[in-house]
Amino acid sequence: MNEVKTRSGRQARQIQRAAKGGGIGRPYIVRNIPTYDVLSEENLIRIEAAADRVLAETGIEFRDDPVTLDHWRKAGADVQGLLVKFPPGMLREILKSAPAEFTQYARTPANSVQIGGRNVVFSPAYGSPFVMDLDRGRRFGTLDDFRNFIMLAQSSPNFHHSGGTICEPTDIAVNKRHLDMVLAHIELSDRPYMGSVTSESRAEDSIEMSRILFGEAFVNEYCVILGNVNVNSPLVWDGTMTNSLRAYARANQAAVIVPFILGGAMGPVTNAGGIVQSLAETMAGCALTQLERKGAPVIFGNFLSSMSLRSGSPTFGTPEPAIGSQVIGQLARRLNLPLRCSGNFTTSKLPDAQAMMEGTISMLAAVHCGANFILHSAGFLDGLLSMSYEKFMLDADLCGALHVYLDGIRIDDDQLAVDAFAEVGPGNHFFGCSHTMKHYETAFWDSDLSDNEPFEKWEAAGSEDAAIRANRLWKRRLAEFEAPPLDVAKRDALHDFVARRKASEPDSWY
Amino acid sequence: MNEVKTRSGRQARQIQRAAKGGGIGRPYIVRNIPTYDVLSEENLIRIEAAADRVLAETGIEFRDDPVTLDHWRKAGADVQGLLVKFPPGMLREILKSAPAEFTQYARTPANSVQIGGRNVVFSPAYGSPFVMDLDRGRRFGTLDDFRNFIMLAQSSPNFHHSGGTICEPTDIAVNKRHLDMVLAHIELSDRPYMGSVTSESRAEDSIEMSRILFGEAFVNEYCVILGNVNVNSPLVWDGTMTNSLRAYARANQAAVIVPFILGGAMGPVTNAGGIVQSLAETMAGCALTQLERKGAPVIFGNFLSSMSLRSGSPTFGTPEPAIGSQVIGQLARRLNLPLRCSGNFTTSKLPDAQAMMEGTISMLAAVHCGANFILHSAGFLDGLLSMSYEKFMLDADLCGALHVYLDGIRIDDDQLAVDAFAEVGPGNHFFGCSHTMKHYETAFWDSDLSDNEPFEKWEAAGSEDAAIRANRLWKRRLAEFEAPPLDVAKRDALHDFVARRKASEPDSWY
Repeated sequence: MNEVKTRSGRQARQIQRAAKGGGIGRPYIVRNIPTYDVLSEENLIRIEAAADRVLAETGIEFRDDPVTLDHWRKAGADVQGLLVKFPPGMLREILKSAPAEFTQYARTPANSVQIGGRNVVFSPAYGSPFVMDLDRGRRFGTLDDFRNFIMLAQSSPNFHHSGGTICEPTDIAVNKRHLDMVLAHIELSDRPYMGSVTSESRAEDSIEMSRILFGEAFVNEYCVILGNVNVNSPLVWDGTMTNSLRAYARANQAAVIVPFILGGAMGPVTNAGGIVQSLAETMAGCALTQLERKGAPVIFGNFLSSMSLRSGSPTFGTPEPAIGSQVIGQLARRLNLPLRCSGNFTTSKLPDAQAMMEGTISMLAAVHCGANFILHSAGFLDGLLSMSYEKFMLDADLCGALHVYLDGIRIDDDQLAVDAFAEVGPGNHFFGCSHTMKHYETAFWDSDLSDNEPFEKWEAAGSEDAAIRANRLWKRRLAEFEAPPLDVAKRDALHDFVARRKASEPDSWY
Repeated sequence: MNEVKTRSGRQARQIQRAAKGGGIGRPYIVRNIPTYDVLSEENLIRIEAAADRVLAETGIEFRDDPVTLDHWRKAGADVQGLLVKFPPGMLREILKSAPAEFTQYARTPANSVQIGGRNVVFSPAYGSPFVMDLDRGRRFGTLDDFRNFIMLAQSSPNFHHSGGTICEPTDIAVNKRHLDMVLAHIELSDRPYMGSVTSESRAEDSIEMSRILFGEAFVNEYCVILGNVNVNSPLVWDGTMTNSLRAYARANQAAVIVPFILGGAMGPVTNAGGIVQSLAETMAGCALTQLERKGAPVIFGNFLSSMSLRSGSPTFGTPEPAIGSQVIGQLARRLNLPLRCSGNFTTSKLPDAQAMMEGTISMLAAVHCGANFILHSAGFLDGLLSMSYEKFMLDADLCGALHVYLDGIRIDDDQLAVDAFAEVGPGNHFFGCSHTMKHYETAFWDSDLSDNEPFEKWEAAGSEDAAIRANRLWKRRLAEFEAPPLDVAKRDALHDFVARRKASEPDSWY
């Protein structure tokens, strides 16, 4: 049932013990608060039944990938040309072989993460063509920007994952940038990372570089890289994505299956309808990984969004997708699959009040819904078109607060402090009492960026807003950055691989 | 058991039906999502037992109010000088006469609010000596500012209550400003409001003005005004507060009972300890209302906060109080009392990213914990020292989003949209399909302030941040404001009362 988990059981338990220790700098979070379940079981069953009907009656198109159509035919689906219709219950049955929880290994073993169950992993945003900062405004992202964001993530204790295409390095040829990106993740970070999915060969390059780093036998047995594949919603899977998805599954690596549904455009305008579609599309993608390799790890994802019905623009961080994410979380748990949800979304073009209002709504939804892997945890601005240096730092701070939030509250005699009341008595302050002295060093979350000084002190220091403080902090973090040591032989082998692959074909810009 | 609710049952049901209609402009929200319960019953019982021990062993001091001491003595408490110790279970028994839910009437009946149960009421922030806006910076609040904030609340469909001391009108004598404040609420708003608590006579003036507005017999029978009274934490009730509390209860009006606990200063540095204290102090205050007048409405409140252990400054919108509020919500429901919780808190000195990150964390905690009356829903900046015009508008927008969030998700065949998938089919967009046409007008929450235009369009329009848009909006709202009509005879009688009371004593500035 849970092959990957079983194989690596002892190491997983060791990692989990470390994560339970609390504080910052943990490899990942083990949540100590329940998920927030907004729907009754009866209504969840209605959603599942609707998804089953859509899968059976309308079906999903699989384009440009005959192997996938063949997989479906053999599994018992009704394949008519590119259209696949699924008998009710078939996908659920196939999904039983996917692990409920698995370890993604990092090159520094203490940084390996456990994905699934009560575990939570924060990863930077993914996929923006532009970058922004307060000094230079918006511009196309470059490999330098890409490397900067890896360094900013690596130098913060509030993340657990290095991410993937944090921004597009648009100064590198499209057919070669995946090599530089995976190399940068490996060289500048010692946390787990993601690889390319923009073609099957780029997916395979990403996995091959991971084999150089971890060894071929290890990679065949354990997960060391994730690939984030998108549905071409509504109800279409493109061959580029299914070929990449199958490349990851074939190598026993985890695909993250994510429909992007903008209600009213790529899906129904009703929240319930978007969830039905998301469930149908994700179940199909997750099941396909199991047909490619039974027992391969896979992550059930979603990306619900709403739309401004005045302008037709996408909106992010709004209440409907926040509720929707919480429902998706309940559905994923009923499938017993690890969950990727939501993130720190906004349509704002600046690291301002709008950005953090929308960001906090969506990030708390991700945390409440039980997401195990939260992509887009930091940096997301401009409807995902831009990675912002300042927003990245503000979001990192929110991720820090969420470590403490997810720890919940401890109830024992010492924490309940009955003796402290007897010691202090009515009308006296608790500043110096023994209970305070015992706990004050670990008592409260301490923000890197929030200003809680008195007004006069804040004013005397220059009346700075949070974005300006964030601007100063990212510059300091980059100036102080030291890359984690990497085995020289592995480094050379990786550079050789990249050089050879780059020399093997001409640059292509599409 | 629930006298107030029973008396006004029919009207309450009418109001509730109106509120259930959805959309904005409702008199209050009836939540359609569950509360977020973070603790097990076993742990809640441990907290209650700890509070009972603090009440029985350490006790609470009641200063400068012999009548209150006499009440406790007669009720069976152990009174030693000013110190009162409570036998376990005594307060819970007394609290059984307090209504679980009651109506606060507004002068426009359709604006009356139902407080308790699944109902949620948003009210502006309360108590800042300073005000701020982007044009003039920080300055002491005046009666003009006070009136402006009432107008901004009244002109927004996202609030349900006019609030109380939204800012201190520091240009009016301390002993007379309550008269101008209550008059302004009555003249500029037709929603429910709060009165003064800074002395017994000012509380009685506030209630007397409500008698002029609603009629004496009506006020004796129904709640028309709230008074927000604070515990002098830890474990002290001052006579000013208990005298005001008793004045409200005596008049059958609702006191809101609120400890202000800054962990590590006015309470233990542990989250669990702060909750124990909050429960003990609030139970005592709520029970006192029942000893003054059995069956009087009362609201169980809390105001948990954390502290920067580097600077000793209070911090707001941090994760510990967010978790703490959710526990307090569970405890209030076990007492079957209406709940006031949390609000839109921040220590930021500007309407910036910090302000909305902290604000959104705390406001979502208030919404999740099941709070029925959310004071400080808008305007709170600078650790409650300043009311900000721009933050008020940003928070109002968040309150709008939370209307939709609290509506949750509707699950029926039409919302599940199975037929829409059949109509549209794989790979086609939903823009013009009949399901979209049917729903698009009411589909998604529409922000007053968020910019979701494409970057280029936003840039061409001046690259404004959310605070600048908020600045423009509050000016427009004030320019367009029209006060709701008020019966001339009542208005004249209120002005007469204020003039007489002002003439009856010299100005006092403390």
